[in-house]
Amino acid sequence: MGRKLQNSELNRLSIEEFKQSPKLPVIIVLDNVRSQHNIGAAFRTSDAFRIESIFLCGISSTPPNSEIHKSALGAEDSVDWQYFENAVDAINILKKNGYKIISIEQTEDSIMLNNFLPDNDKKYAFVFGNEVRGVSQPVVDASDLCIEIPQEGTKHSLNVSVSIGIVLWEFYKNLKSVLS
Amino acid sequence: MGRKLQNSELNRLSIEEFKQSPKLPVIIVLDNVRSQHNIGAAFRTSDAFRIESIFLCGISSTPPNSEIHKSALGAEDSVDWQYFENAVDAINILKKNGYKIISIEQTEDSIMLNNFLPDNDKKYAFVFGNEVRGVSQPVVDASDLCIEIPQEGTKHSLNVSVSIGIVLWEFYKNLKSVLS
Repeated sequence: MGRKLQNSELNRLSIEEFKQSPKLPVIIVLDNVRSQHNIGAAFRTSDAFRIESIFLCGISSTPPNSEIHKSALGAEDSVDWQYFENAVDAINILKKNGYKIISIEQTEDSIMLNNFLPDNDKKYAFVFGNEVRGVSQPVVDASDLCIEIPQEGTKHSLNVSVSIGIVLWEFYKNLKSVLS
Repeated sequence: MGRKLQNSELNRLSIEEFKQSPKLPVIIVLDNVRSQHNIGAAFRTSDAFRIESIFLCGISSTPPNSEIHKSALGAEDSVDWQYFENAVDAINILKKNGYKIISIEQTEDSIMLNNFLPDNDKKYAFVFGNEVRGVSQPVVDASDLCIEIPQEGTKHSLNVSVSIGIVLWEFYKNLKSVLS
């Protein structure tokens, strides 16, 4: 197989170029995410798939933070973010602005991620919850839809930064025509 | 939206059931992965998508390990693993056993993940490299193919546990008929 590419050959954007580039019509809401490593990874993944913003809620830490920086590696400077004490307030603002609210949670009526095809003309907000308790029932109740990542093993859930990666990848694949 | 499901309602497998269940024809090779958090998350994701085994190589830590356990949460007991000092030795064994070797790396001739469709009758080994240096050139050279996760932001790569999640999810979606 061929030669590995140098970082300089990857033609990534500068932070200024990122700010001015078209984005996926996607915002992620992190509600009570305890681990700063998970928040940092969320910034890095959000940068890679060029989404609009991250809404950090409840106990979720915010930049500047040295632990977030260790896994975000600077992506906390490219991706926009806002802090809300209460995730339901954030969701109500998103709804007013036309976003479809999708909680990533296992519920009685959740749809499997592989069975959901996004609309090209809609805006989406994905809610991810606490590492142990998941998305809270009041936030689930305020959502338009719940999506579940199908799992076939012994554990009940995936790491939250891995879940964010899978969900953003899936929507990036389906919506990426808006970036070019 | 509906009621959140209790863990007991998710009908996950016991470790004994996991060991006896059909697996995705997939092995992941972690070469010189420094972070035990990333290795633990790899076990948890491999459990969720029920792959055959994890080959831990070079400086990658192995279970039992308290830091791996913190992110694997017991998945290090369900998913099979082996240790190899040299990843090229692991790859040669995998090749002899009929696995197609795919390094996840940005190279001159890497294929974008969304442009690759796996064969239902092939077995795959995916190689993930060090957090900073990626997959080494000798390991790239020993591979049948390199796959790249397309990225549109400022950073040159994703967190390794996020990359593993995206790649395994993509192959799970395409190959999961073998699990039922």
